[in-house]
Amino acid sequence: MPPEEFREWGRRFVDWIADYLEGAERYPVLARVAPGEVRRNLPAAAPERGESMDALFRDFESVVMPGVTHWNHPGFFGYFAISGSGPGILGELLAAALNVNAMVWKSAPAATELEAVVLDWLRRFLGLPEGFSGAIHDTASTSTFTALAAAREKGLPEARERGMAAAPRGVVYGTAETHSSIAKSVRALGFGRRGLRSVETGAGRAMDPAALARRIDADLDAGLRPLAVVATIGTTSTAAVDPVARVAEVAAARGLWLHVDAAYAGPAAGLGLLRPHFEGWECADSIVLNPHKWLFTPVDCSVLYVRDPASLRAAFSLVPAYLETGEREVEHLMDQGLALGRRFRALKLWFVLRYFGQEGLRRVLSRHIALARRLAGRIDAEDGWERWRPTRFSLVVLRCARRGTAGPERDRINRRILERVNAGGEAFVSHTELDGELWIRVAIGNLRTRARHVDALWEALQRAAEEV
Amino acid sequence: MPPEEFREWGRRFVDWIADYLEGAERYPVLARVAPGEVRRNLPAAAPERGESMDALFRDFESVVMPGVTHWNHPGFFGYFAISGSGPGILGELLAAALNVNAMVWKSAPAATELEAVVLDWLRRFLGLPEGFSGAIHDTASTSTFTALAAAREKGLPEARERGMAAAPRGVVYGTAETHSSIAKSVRALGFGRRGLRSVETGAGRAMDPAALARRIDADLDAGLRPLAVVATIGTTSTAAVDPVARVAEVAAARGLWLHVDAAYAGPAAGLGLLRPHFEGWECADSIVLNPHKWLFTPVDCSVLYVRDPASLRAAFSLVPAYLETGEREVEHLMDQGLALGRRFRALKLWFVLRYFGQEGLRRVLSRHIALARRLAGRIDAEDGWERWRPTRFSLVVLRCARRGTAGPERDRINRRILERVNAGGEAFVSHTELDGELWIRVAIGNLRTRARHVDALWEALQRAAEEV
Repeated sequence: MPPEEFREWGRRFVDWIADYLEGAERYPVLARVAPGEVRRNLPAAAPERGESMDALFRDFESVVMPGVTHWNHPGFFGYFAISGSGPGILGELLAAALNVNAMVWKSAPAATELEAVVLDWLRRFLGLPEGFSGAIHDTASTSTFTALAAAREKGLPEARERGMAAAPRGVVYGTAETHSSIAKSVRALGFGRRGLRSVETGAGRAMDPAALARRIDADLDAGLRPLAVVATIGTTSTAAVDPVARVAEVAAARGLWLHVDAAYAGPAAGLGLLRPHFEGWECADSIVLNPHKWLFTPVDCSVLYVRDPASLRAAFSLVPAYLETGEREVEHLMDQGLALGRRFRALKLWFVLRYFGQEGLRRVLSRHIALARRLAGRIDAEDGWERWRPTRFSLVVLRCARRGTAGPERDRINRRILERVNAGGEAFVSHTELDGELWIRVAIGNLRTRARHVDALWEALQRAAEEV
Repeated sequence: MPPEEFREWGRRFVDWIADYLEGAERYPVLARVAPGEVRRNLPAAAPERGESMDALFRDFESVVMPGVTHWNHPGFFGYFAISGSGPGILGELLAAALNVNAMVWKSAPAATELEAVVLDWLRRFLGLPEGFSGAIHDTASTSTFTALAAAREKGLPEARERGMAAAPRGVVYGTAETHSSIAKSVRALGFGRRGLRSVETGAGRAMDPAALARRIDADLDAGLRPLAVVATIGTTSTAAVDPVARVAEVAAARGLWLHVDAAYAGPAAGLGLLRPHFEGWECADSIVLNPHKWLFTPVDCSVLYVRDPASLRAAFSLVPAYLETGEREVEHLMDQGLALGRRFRALKLWFVLRYFGQEGLRRVLSRHIALARRLAGRIDAEDGWERWRPTRFSLVVLRCARRGTAGPERDRINRRILERVNAGGEAFVSHTELDGELWIRVAIGNLRTRARHVDALWEALQRAAEEV
């Protein structure tokens, strides 16, 4: 592409993005296309001759945009709300242009070292002690997989040479609230569907450390090999918090690896008031948190901290002749996990941390938490609505519970409320199941979400409840 | 970030990128920083208060840029040369701005469906038959891991519930030339370091199908469970090509999964003249190729094709309540592999395929292959140099072999030639080892590489040989 064409279209796209981000509210949050509609509007084969940027942009607007669900919309309250801030997007643009592949230090010294530096900045922001070092992966699924692979390498040495068929059955511990990605990792690592034990939970759906100890001891007695415990700070369903300090004691006493999943809530460790939820996470062997969730960095950016980087190298390092570089004193990102190639993901995170500053980040996080409390207060003041307690971080879980409704009927009502609100286009909320019953999740985390958006959602929920 | 600030800095960055790409030759290819130098130029903590984009950009230029190895430089001939074309970079910019997370269809219909469409376009370009469907992963390491996980799910059903400890030892087959990422995947999947068998190679370092059959049969006799064969089209060391059609026969006769690693050379299947190298790949169960390598798409973009998408769902699908969406007739990208979250990677590939057109892509690929042949011709015409034969695709492997030099002395000379050329800043070449001896690899694949860059490299190699 000639430089002048790049300049022209780059500027046009930048202007388009500025308008889009400013006016994201004009779009319905959820895409209104039917399954297959985007596909049907595209030809069956790539063009034989190259096309103009004009033609591409036209189709981007007419075919792609109608099929976009707007995670940028301030009324996006589904899953965990996210936002890629302006500096994050610009960082991503520069990274795409530099296009380095940070597999070994020499192939991308700046990407390799900046990753170490910004993750150390983030560690300080989070109040984690020195000694944790990090690497950026694409998603929490990958970060967790990487951590559990290291745990397996350490705790199941019999499997190193001849594989897991030559070793005792390894076991990983979580709860019914543990994120599905942990079950996926446990399967991928070869522990089978029964390789993840669901430990009983107590108050607030938090892991019961005594039950954990009993489970581990029973497995030891049965000749199994307990390997790792996954404790969650901020579960996906209700933002529940496992008692990490007590879980850590149980794990340490039995030599198990402790992995802390703080993918969503992690950034809140930077707020003094919420520090108590993170008590004991400094005892973890590994911690995952996702700046692409609640730290305003574009997807994808998941951070894995480990206390012993040698454990990752033990699991993943393998250097063929064509990747030998001669530098002995440097770390190579390829030794931090499965992927050999690595994008320059640190750049966008560096931009975000500097542009906001620690104080700026704390301000946005606090605002989101205050918005969640505001909504919680509204719910509590209204008859016929129920809130899952406690409300943690910026996630509010609620349902309509009119007098006389219960069980499947209540679920039907809430499902229809959910569908009606989501069809309205001004807000998107998702759901979860607790004790087999449906609850509505309102996750606050978008940079542009203000009180009026939360109030509008609450009105929409009430209106829907009247109508169904 | 206020829209006006985004506009201003977006435009400045676009201009900077246009200048950078046009003038990439002005930089030394390899970064000239010492290990730790980038890190030392950065403060120990994130700023407390937010900083201006001015300050960020200043440090980007003064601290980051000197630490960048320029994969954009037309003299980059190391590893496999790549380039993120203009349309690819612009696609990445839009994807970062939309910031959708394509985990389920509903969360990103356009990203989900465009991924299916562009991968079907690419399938046609490559001449692969209908029936292969694809998904985009970050790297070939991940694509291969995903394929082998599906192979394990299919071939080792005993491991599903109670894990691999309850199953026979699984075995995967490659050669000494198979990429290191396959060994990494085999380990990660729990097969142990001995889980990957190295099958003997014949002429041109290609897998010997008869030896493969013997190995598999011996393992079957020993009670092991042969699961998958990895055949490579374009190995990393020498771009060797395994006889895929014959390997496929051996694998099919014994019920093994066939994975074809065409991460680098895959795009060359779009050239009629090179189709013979790909004979039999249509019999594969899975194929990986990386548009971020030789198809002008920014890192990261690795494509995994499979013939039976249900095999991926069997290995990876697992839907908790909070991800239930109600749409029954749609595919969700989260079921295609380990990662739950997914960037909108299809957008950049769509831009690249349309902007170049199939004919434009073939033209660039042909030019790179012609440049490799040009260099091969020069080497052959010069006394004292040796070329690894045959030269395949766009990779030339060579060494200085002056009369009388051999063994370690010849290695020393070539290592010094390599270091001298790389220190010069106008070119970067990497190396490999063949039969324990050092060879220099010249990988041609950058969009801006022209005859004069290849000629300049050849002169630099000769000059270095005279000087060492």
